[in-house]
Amino acid sequence: MENKKVLFLVGEEFEDIEVLYPFYRVIEEGFKPIIAWKEANSKVTGKHGYVVISDISFKEVRPEEYVALVLPGGRGPEKIRTLEEVKNITRKFFELKKPVAAICHGPQILISANVVRGRKLTSVASIKDDVIAAGGIYIDDSVVVDDNLISSRHPGDLPYFALTLIKALKSLK
Amino acid sequence: MENKKVLFLVGEEFEDIEVLYPFYRVIEEGFKPIIAWKEANSKVTGKHGYVVISDISFKEVRPEEYVALVLPGGRGPEKIRTLEEVKNITRKFFELKKPVAAICHGPQILISANVVRGRKLTSVASIKDDVIAAGGIYIDDSVVVDDNLISSRHPGDLPYFALTLIKALKSLK
Amino acid sequence: MENKKVLFLVGEEFEDIEVLYPFYRVIEEGFKPIIAWKEANSKVTGKHGYVVISDISFKEVRPEEYVALVLPGGRGPEKIRTLEEVKNITRKFFELKKPVAAICHGPQILISANVVRGRKLTSVASIKDDVIAAGGIYIDDSVVVDDNLISSRHPGDLPYFALTLIKALKSLK
Amino acid sequence: MENKKVLFLVGEEFEDIEVLYPFYRVIEEGFKPIIAWKEANSKVTGKHGYVVISDISFKEVRPEEYVALVLPGGRGPEKIRTLEEVKNITRKFFELKKPVAAICHGPQILISANVVRGRKLTSVASIKDDVIAAGGIYIDDSVVVDDNLISSRHPGDLPYFALTLIKALKSLK
Amino acid sequence: MENKKVLFLVGEEFEDIEVLYPFYRVIEEGFKPIIAWKEANSKVTGKHGYVVISDISFKEVRPEEYVALVLPGGRGPEKIRTLEEVKNITRKFFELKKPVAAICHGPQILISANVVRGRKLTSVASIKDDVIAAGGIYIDDSVVVDDNLISSRHPGDLPYFALTLIKALKSLK
Amino acid sequence: MENKKVLFLVGEEFEDIEVLYPFYRVIEEGFKPIIAWKEANSKVTGKHGYVVISDISFKEVRPEEYVALVLPGGRGPEKIRTLEEVKNITRKFFELKKPVAAICHGPQILISANVVRGRKLTSVASIKDDVIAAGGIYIDDSVVVDDNLISSRHPGDLPYFALTLIKALKSLK
Repeated sequence: MENKKVLFLVGEEFEDIEVLYPFYRVIEEGFKPIIAWKEANSKVTGKHGYVVISDISFKEVRPEEYVALVLPGGRGPEKIRTLEEVKNITRKFFELKKPVAAICHGPQILISANVVRGRKLTSVASIKDDVIAAGGIYIDDSVVVDDNLISSRHPGDLPYFALTLIKALKSLK
Repeated sequence: MENKKVLFLVGEEFEDIEVLYPFYRVIEEGFKPIIAWKEANSKVTGKHGYVVISDISFKEVRPEEYVALVLPGGRGPEKIRTLEEVKNITRKFFELKKPVAAICHGPQILISANVVRGRKLTSVASIKDDVIAAGGIYIDDSVVVDDNLISSRHPGDLPYFALTLIKALKSLK
Repeated sequence: MENKKVLFLVGEEFEDIEVLYPFYRVIEEGFKPIIAWKEANSKVTGKHGYVVISDISFKEVRPEEYVALVLPGGRGPEKIRTLEEVKNITRKFFELKKPVAAICHGPQILISANVVRGRKLTSVASIKDDVIAAGGIYIDDSVVVDDNLISSRHPGDLPYFALTLIKALKSLK
Repeated sequence: MENKKVLFLVGEEFEDIEVLYPFYRVIEEGFKPIIAWKEANSKVTGKHGYVVISDISFKEVRPEEYVALVLPGGRGPEKIRTLEEVKNITRKFFELKKPVAAICHGPQILISANVVRGRKLTSVASIKDDVIAAGGIYIDDSVVVDDNLISSRHPGDLPYFALTLIKALKSLK
Repeated sequence: MENKKVLFLVGEEFEDIEVLYPFYRVIEEGFKPIIAWKEANSKVTGKHGYVVISDISFKEVRPEEYVALVLPGGRGPEKIRTLEEVKNITRKFFELKKPVAAICHGPQILISANVVRGRKLTSVASIKDDVIAAGGIYIDDSVVVDDNLISSRHPGDLPYFALTLIKALKSLK
Repeated sequence: MENKKVLFLVGEEFEDIEVLYPFYRVIEEGFKPIIAWKEANSKVTGKHGYVVISDISFKEVRPEEYVALVLPGGRGPEKIRTLEEVKNITRKFFELKKPVAAICHGPQILISANVVRGRKLTSVASIKDDVIAAGGIYIDDSVVVDDNLISSRHPGDLPYFALTLIKALKSLK
């Protein structure tokens, strides 16, 4: 039987550790991380120079095939949030009520996908006002859970972000 | 008689040309650009490595003393938009109905200052959804004028941004 | 009750993810990571620019107070392996039969501490010949366990390295 | 009617602001800036990382088609001053008595074109002795005008450099 | 008559001065330096950004054609020491009793080639323990000569390293 | 008896190999290289990141105490050529008829010291026109000797530059 897949949406200059930590972490738990970017089989470089290879293009993604969505931060979200496919993928995960885990600047994609209104969430402090403007209920905590939405503020929150994501993934089984 | 002063709010990793172009441009017209940052008399470095020296700290700024406000882009706005002084300065310029010129990521400060609702403006495409979420009427043009608010999208719009700013400054005299 | 502590020995230009992944990972499991370097309370920068703050100097370390030792890779091990304190700390963990987890260039410290002879272990391929010259039994696998010694080859092995380290930590309780 | 064209000669590692400021500035006044480099349609990168696309190669330039010549500084002039086409273009503008505006290291091209003798001009201080050796009359001022030749010292002089260039361009109409 | 050839084995991120100094130095004495790397006619870049062009691939090297071998340091040796051709070339020079001059991290290649046992040599301090583990007799001196093997510690030893190498080359004539 | 001293005038962003090669080379021959910069006991960094420590400030230099002067290239000469002490030191070596060896951009200092007129010399191609404008007789060769003046074009000429310098130094004894 194939491993269940977790989808990562990345953009150039992503915050390296916010991709790599959950990426390796879901492998630990027996899931298969899949990296989506504008093109498949391409090198995408983080702010600190780590390189990941995309498995699939945004256009090819079918949310039904994944158990959860991870939205890492850094400058990546700004590079991809304007793409219709990125917004559609994100909205679809919410419709399917599958776990969506966003950290740091990751919630910029949530804003673009228009799924923030009325939801409790957190983000890096510098986009707090955008989250609030978009109708989100901003909570300054290491990890915030609102139904299927898991969010954290910055790399220092990664242990709590990962624990919560893993718990959600396990409860799916 | 002293030159009339134009205030620039800058943050670390500002988009260099978006600070330097209007900075030198207002000098050409006989105005005095004043750079405000967290601390006075400090070096602030742009994304491309140009360095400006701050003249004044945000706390010391008295908007009444300036004829206009410039909000350059880059990563600077994210570094300073959460500061109460930055929000207060920005709101005060709107209350005083003095020209406010924002370019690229500059409108992130407008969002934090909560002065976007119902206004026509533009910005870098990557924060368009934030502008809209904050109640702004987003217009994709090289320069957008709504009453005292002047906005542009990116460095390529600088000639039109500057022309409009200079026109506003001259009409004040 | 205080958390049990896991000791990390770092050197300048460490492989960032090899410090950060196990660092956050042991926090997830309720342990407290402690970073040791030449000086306490100092910034130490990785190859990719991530910065960690040392908690303690090598001289101050008392191995008895920790449940395990982590030796991350990158260029860090070369910077610290010649220090007597580093060798002594490492040897002491072996004497105490506490888990020692080394990855990538981390085994350079094991060689300097002279604890490799007759042991099965792995490392980054580029120091394989040094491991063998020091009497180690080199095994090319994602994670190798020989009694208290856990070793891996490179960042791609981190999930297996971490799983094995965590298992060892849990078996201590 | 087409816009009148202003020619810029650039070389790799140009001083970014010394290209960009006059480039956008002449657009403001209704002129069309044209970038010439060794090859047409190529990316040329400044010292600070800004990229411009060349419109035309040096070989294709016909000085008769332009109203003025701009020679920005940085390390660009050293990269192109030895080329015969660059020297010929420069000399031709002098023969045609069209405005030539050089800033910072830009006068290195004037020296190579052998048009400095007996002329009043300025430059960055570090090539002052070259200007003098070439027969120039060095004047330490923010902008120096000698007939069709306009020169400035460094980025801080840009407002005065631009004002003088624009004035010269307008007097041509 | 053709110049006698001296072979250099380089790897990416070599210590620039440790390649360039002996490279130019043997030219001074009438020898011809030949750079070998994984591929022929390729750019190989040092830690500090100097670029050399490889003359020949490791596979093509026939040690009989050279009068001596130079093994510079930096991070280059780690990049190439695992290659069988590199080990074979090195061993062959020892069999032929031709001068082999290694500096800094260069002895990492000697360890991989298994030619260190019982020999007096030096290296950068950070791999001293590897040299000893491999059976070498480590001597902390600016240059150490043991039969055909010449070794030094770091760039500051270059004058003594070069003098000794040149002396060995001259005694061959 | 103390070693005879050779003086190096360096500026920030010197061409690293043009300082280091002759520096180590004169040590090989039993001379003592002395590095002069604006301040004594200071780190001066080359274009490629190598660091040298200045032994003496320009002001303290007494040319009578040295047997020769070396003027390396890179961007260093532009940083120091305007200083009166640098010009005076250079002129004094010519008056004393002691060897002066300049490479690459090093002749920029000769131009500023006004010692080029009527002399045969070479330099990096990009300042050839400055050398000629200053009255020099430019010769495109790997090393040019005119009485006490030795000059070369670029790093590739270092073996010939060094050989000629060493020959001049030895003839002094």
